[in-house]
Amino acid sequence: MIVIMDEGATEAQVQAVIDRLVELEFTVHRSTGMVHTVLGGVGPEEVVEPSEFEVMDGVKECRRIISPYKLASRHFRPSGTQVKVGGASFGGDAVVMMAGPGLVENKDQIEKVAEAAAGAGAQVLMGGVKKARLHAPAPAGLGEEGLRLLWEAAGRHGLAVASEVADANDIELFVKYVDLLMVESGNTSNCHLLGEIGKAGHPVLLNRGAAATVEEWLLAAERILLAGNCNVILCERGIRTMESPARLTLDINAIPLLKRLTHLPVIVDPSHAGGRRDMVAALARAGVAAGADGVMLEIHPDPDHARAEGAQTLRLETFAELAGQLKAVAAALGRRI
Amino acid sequence: MIVIMDEGATEAQVQAVIDRLVELEFTVHRSTGMVHTVLGGVGPEEVVEPSEFEVMDGVKECRRIISPYKLASRHFRPSGTQVKVGGASFGGDAVVMMAGPGLVENKDQIEKVAEAAAGAGAQVLMGGVKKARLHAPAPAGLGEEGLRLLWEAAGRHGLAVASEVADANDIELFVKYVDLLMVESGNTSNCHLLGEIGKAGHPVLLNRGAAATVEEWLLAAERILLAGNCNVILCERGIRTMESPARLTLDINAIPLLKRLTHLPVIVDPSHAGGRRDMVAALARAGVAAGADGVMLEIHPDPDHARAEGAQTLRLETFAELAGQLKAVAAALGRRI
Amino acid sequence: MIVIMDEGATEAQVQAVIDRLVELEFTVHRSTGMVHTVLGGVGPEEVVEPSEFEVMDGVKECRRIISPYKLASRHFRPSGTQVKVGGASFGGDAVVMMAGPGLVENKDQIEKVAEAAAGAGAQVLMGGVKKARLHAPAPAGLGEEGLRLLWEAAGRHGLAVASEVADANDIELFVKYVDLLMVESGNTSNCHLLGEIGKAGHPVLLNRGAAATVEEWLLAAERILLAGNCNVILCERGIRTMESPARLTLDINAIPLLKRLTHLPVIVDPSHAGGRRDMVAALARAGVAAGADGVMLEIHPDPDHARAEGAQTLRLETFAELAGQLKAVAAALGRRI
Amino acid sequence: MIVIMDEGATEAQVQAVIDRLVELEFTVHRSTGMVHTVLGGVGPEEVVEPSEFEVMDGVKECRRIISPYKLASRHFRPSGTQVKVGGASFGGDAVVMMAGPGLVENKDQIEKVAEAAAGAGAQVLMGGVKKARLHAPAPAGLGEEGLRLLWEAAGRHGLAVASEVADANDIELFVKYVDLLMVESGNTSNCHLLGEIGKAGHPVLLNRGAAATVEEWLLAAERILLAGNCNVILCERGIRTMESPARLTLDINAIPLLKRLTHLPVIVDPSHAGGRRDMVAALARAGVAAGADGVMLEIHPDPDHARAEGAQTLRLETFAELAGQLKAVAAALGRRI
Repeated sequence: MIVIMDEGATEAQVQAVIDRLVELEFTVHRSTGMVHTVLGGVGPEEVVEPSEFEVMDGVKECRRIISPYKLASRHFRPSGTQVKVGGASFGGDAVVMMAGPGLVENKDQIEKVAEAAAGAGAQVLMGGVKKARLHAPAPAGLGEEGLRLLWEAAGRHGLAVASEVADANDIELFVKYVDLLMVESGNTSNCHLLGEIGKAGHPVLLNRGAAATVEEWLLAAERILLAGNCNVILCERGIRTMESPARLTLDINAIPLLKRLTHLPVIVDPSHAGGRRDMVAALARAGVAAGADGVMLEIHPDPDHARAEGAQTLRLETFAELAGQLKAVAAALGRRI
Repeated sequence: MIVIMDEGATEAQVQAVIDRLVELEFTVHRSTGMVHTVLGGVGPEEVVEPSEFEVMDGVKECRRIISPYKLASRHFRPSGTQVKVGGASFGGDAVVMMAGPGLVENKDQIEKVAEAAAGAGAQVLMGGVKKARLHAPAPAGLGEEGLRLLWEAAGRHGLAVASEVADANDIELFVKYVDLLMVESGNTSNCHLLGEIGKAGHPVLLNRGAAATVEEWLLAAERILLAGNCNVILCERGIRTMESPARLTLDINAIPLLKRLTHLPVIVDPSHAGGRRDMVAALARAGVAAGADGVMLEIHPDPDHARAEGAQTLRLETFAELAGQLKAVAAALGRRI
Repeated sequence: MIVIMDEGATEAQVQAVIDRLVELEFTVHRSTGMVHTVLGGVGPEEVVEPSEFEVMDGVKECRRIISPYKLASRHFRPSGTQVKVGGASFGGDAVVMMAGPGLVENKDQIEKVAEAAAGAGAQVLMGGVKKARLHAPAPAGLGEEGLRLLWEAAGRHGLAVASEVADANDIELFVKYVDLLMVESGNTSNCHLLGEIGKAGHPVLLNRGAAATVEEWLLAAERILLAGNCNVILCERGIRTMESPARLTLDINAIPLLKRLTHLPVIVDPSHAGGRRDMVAALARAGVAAGADGVMLEIHPDPDHARAEGAQTLRLETFAELAGQLKAVAAALGRRI
Repeated sequence: MIVIMDEGATEAQVQAVIDRLVELEFTVHRSTGMVHTVLGGVGPEEVVEPSEFEVMDGVKECRRIISPYKLASRHFRPSGTQVKVGGASFGGDAVVMMAGPGLVENKDQIEKVAEAAAGAGAQVLMGGVKKARLHAPAPAGLGEEGLRLLWEAAGRHGLAVASEVADANDIELFVKYVDLLMVESGNTSNCHLLGEIGKAGHPVLLNRGAAATVEEWLLAAERILLAGNCNVILCERGIRTMESPARLTLDINAIPLLKRLTHLPVIVDPSHAGGRRDMVAALARAGVAAGADGVMLEIHPDPDHARAEGAQTLRLETFAELAGQLKAVAAALGRRI
């Protein structure tokens, strides 16, 4: 912990901060300058909030020295982590493509989607089966029947399976059918769910909360890692900005930033980030060009009549065309899809 | 639904939008101008997203006519709602003061707090008993024992009881001890929890999510109202802005805005909004002056050694002084505390 | 300058940072811990950007020790500054009320406004005379004729005069007529204008840029102070947030924050912050309650036909009523208007 | 103009809005529904603010029908605009690369930069010659001497010349030396400067303000177009978000959005958007992949000793490597650099 005292802080104020640090079992190094006194404290930073020092009299600023996340830090595994999901490997040389509808609707729909996904080079089939929404009393989706349809269609086309789980009580059911559990953006700070998913040990895709800073997002990942599960994939899908609520903004800066801060693979979700079909291709290409390890795309045989998220969902033909572009961009970077 | 067509939209594009509206069982009124064609659709707006039209060729913009929340709307009850919590009434002439520690720690602590709260004119004693945090593996707090301590201390001083519930499974336990269930800011989009709390029928305080727009917040309230519970109090406690993560910004505009949009009472939480003790008094006074129906304050006999949120927690003496100021501000507006 | 090295930074990396600091004429203190090495540099911080160190290999973070603004800092004048504008004093015990129209339109209009302002207890009459807008080719306003009308009306009612100057070439003209030069929110980073206004030595009201952090705003003030003018008043008038562009958000937190960081007086502008008439009263009261040294209000005899900013402008009767409320709130805090 | 009345608006309230629209010379179409009344007004939208209606009693919302910018709109020139700058053409098939230092320092520096730029395939050499900063009393830079050095170095290598002009009085001087006038992010709402640049008729690069919405940015472009200059290039360079002030966020969504809204070319500036050298490559590739018509890169023979913006400036070798990647990405999209 580093505490920078105010210009003009009194000796009594400096001493009060030292006393507090010592009380908290820190060892303190003091540096007295002509203008400012700086205190360096070595000790249990994880149990103290910098703000506790910042409200003390005569304190200008307090900063942690040590990163608040450890297992998620790049230093923990400098070479990077690869997460295997079925036959796909996130975080390796290849860029992994995931595709599927917002909601699994019926056998015909998911079969068409699976066929198109496999044909275009995707390795993971995704689909929602239980979507809670503020507007509606009951979650939409087919539940276990949806999982079965998803699993069967994926099996026919050699794809891995991914689906979003929002309730810790559902984890047991989901792991029977899916290779990758997805945590939606609204649950990024749901400690209970994160902990239970961590215990399940299954590969996880952790969406970023629309208002989560990169640090908060990594803290959420840390929670899963701490529970013993190191198969975590991060998914950037847009943040709230002054352009909101009209649209989220894909935080493309987060891709190179995460590559520096963490060893976990990171992918992009241009469908949610763009919010409308005609934005998806540009954002998907940008994500791959920025160095993302994968991209997830919402697709549907008939998006105009999709039961969820139709506006941001690609038609199968558009998807096939985009997949070709993504392969070309990946190749330009020396990667493949 | 109002659909504004692009300058230069073709007749075929206009017709496609009309067809889609009719397919969705809207009645369509068309207005053709020299520059733009505008379509007005009357029908089931609640099942359609404006974005579904905005991605159609030739469409410039699509807006809902009807508010997405109904029971929470001012029009539903123009005279305003009063929520009774023990002897307190939120949304009436009086401004209600709530006070308590971030965590109930022991009998002595909560007794001192309750005594100070009652002495200063607060009507509700609040305290946390089970706080989940991203940083720590297990929730902090005394659980049921904490609820009992809170309830006993409140009883000795004639105060109502409030505490934060984060898990739907805990609701049954909490309603035995508390008069007011609090939903924390991170759970504002937790549909399952909101629905279960709605069914419980107990008075609820709904914190605003740090990244929730006012409309999203009212949609969360609507969810509780739809479940049959109309005893909902809204609590503004700061939003993410460009000044974040250093600090949240109390959205003081939200107070008069909510008074126009909804009949539900609204209070402010200056402790979380300010994040540090020396900001609390100014924000609390501002909230009351802006027309809030109440204010909640974190207090503790020894904030420097508080087990949670010490930096933003007031000492009991400072609290007593602030309570005096708040009474004076309320009186200036013709209200009392 | 404090440089925190990465966990695992090599000795060569540490040495490179030390060499760079020494090259820049810093004296370096090194603290080697088990996990992190921390370097403290004492030297010419004002000519170095922390980011220059943050891009060096092995560096985790770099922070300034010394505040980037000095003359504007609270430490420069702990007792606070009072700025005299005509008979008014900003930053003293009294809360100063300013009022006037967005644009001076004609003699009759400004006379009615001045009469109402004086009658309600305002001490400063303000009005725009040259408003440039992105939408229109030429600035709106009466120019020098407007200044004369403003000055005459103010004189008849014993008010000081304030107006917004956007062009450094106009300063000489404005100081003939006004007691307070106002710098609009869009010019907060206009170094040339700030410098020229600083040289003019006339009292200045510095609006906050809608996207300026508090630190950037104080840097802009510093620029004026450096030019030798210490009569600077800060005006908070709303920032961009996720609720924008629908509306700005009055940063009420900024009031107590500025009271801690700077000795300069701070006032609020609820008209621009609210953007609509029915928000103004609540925000004005909140500003005074939070400790602002003044409040500026847009008023007009007939806002529906005002030539600028009508939606956020109060009718004269509403203004009189609000002035009464503000006096009561100020009195509740032991101040007067 | 479309005015949606509140549920429960009275006939008198509806009539007041109609009267106001008619007074403003709109023709009004009324649509009365079971819940809401909607008024459509055809008339001089450009002189009315929607907020003027939104503050009227009984009004829920008011929207413009017509876009506030016309000349900048895609409809004005559906095929897109190409802006010629020396031998380069922005907005055509090729992706144009611009490169140069934050400040022109001396002949040797700019010669090395020009050689590297030309060698890597850039077509425009840029460099600052007069940089005003809040921190410093006088602008940094060599002024006319810098322009001459820039012009000479560009000439030797067959490059076009670009530099930032901040003061309308300098335009005449700049157009002697440069092919492209750049307007910095802080001047996006400086109407006077925009108008004068418009009159100069020289190609312009208009940076986005860090807090400007896309609509505001297009309004600034409109201002230049209205003055008769249609050679405007837009440059996205990062916006303020909750991750600020630590870093700006490149608004990558803005690229496809602008392609839909406007006919003007759009490029990206990954140096300012990233703020640090190690972010630049990823953001530059993302910009090209998203469809930008160009990219500008800050480069310097010795960034550690650059007189401005060293942290975000690339070394010449890194730049050469990145240029190769950008060519590959452009080729993947069927474009060339």
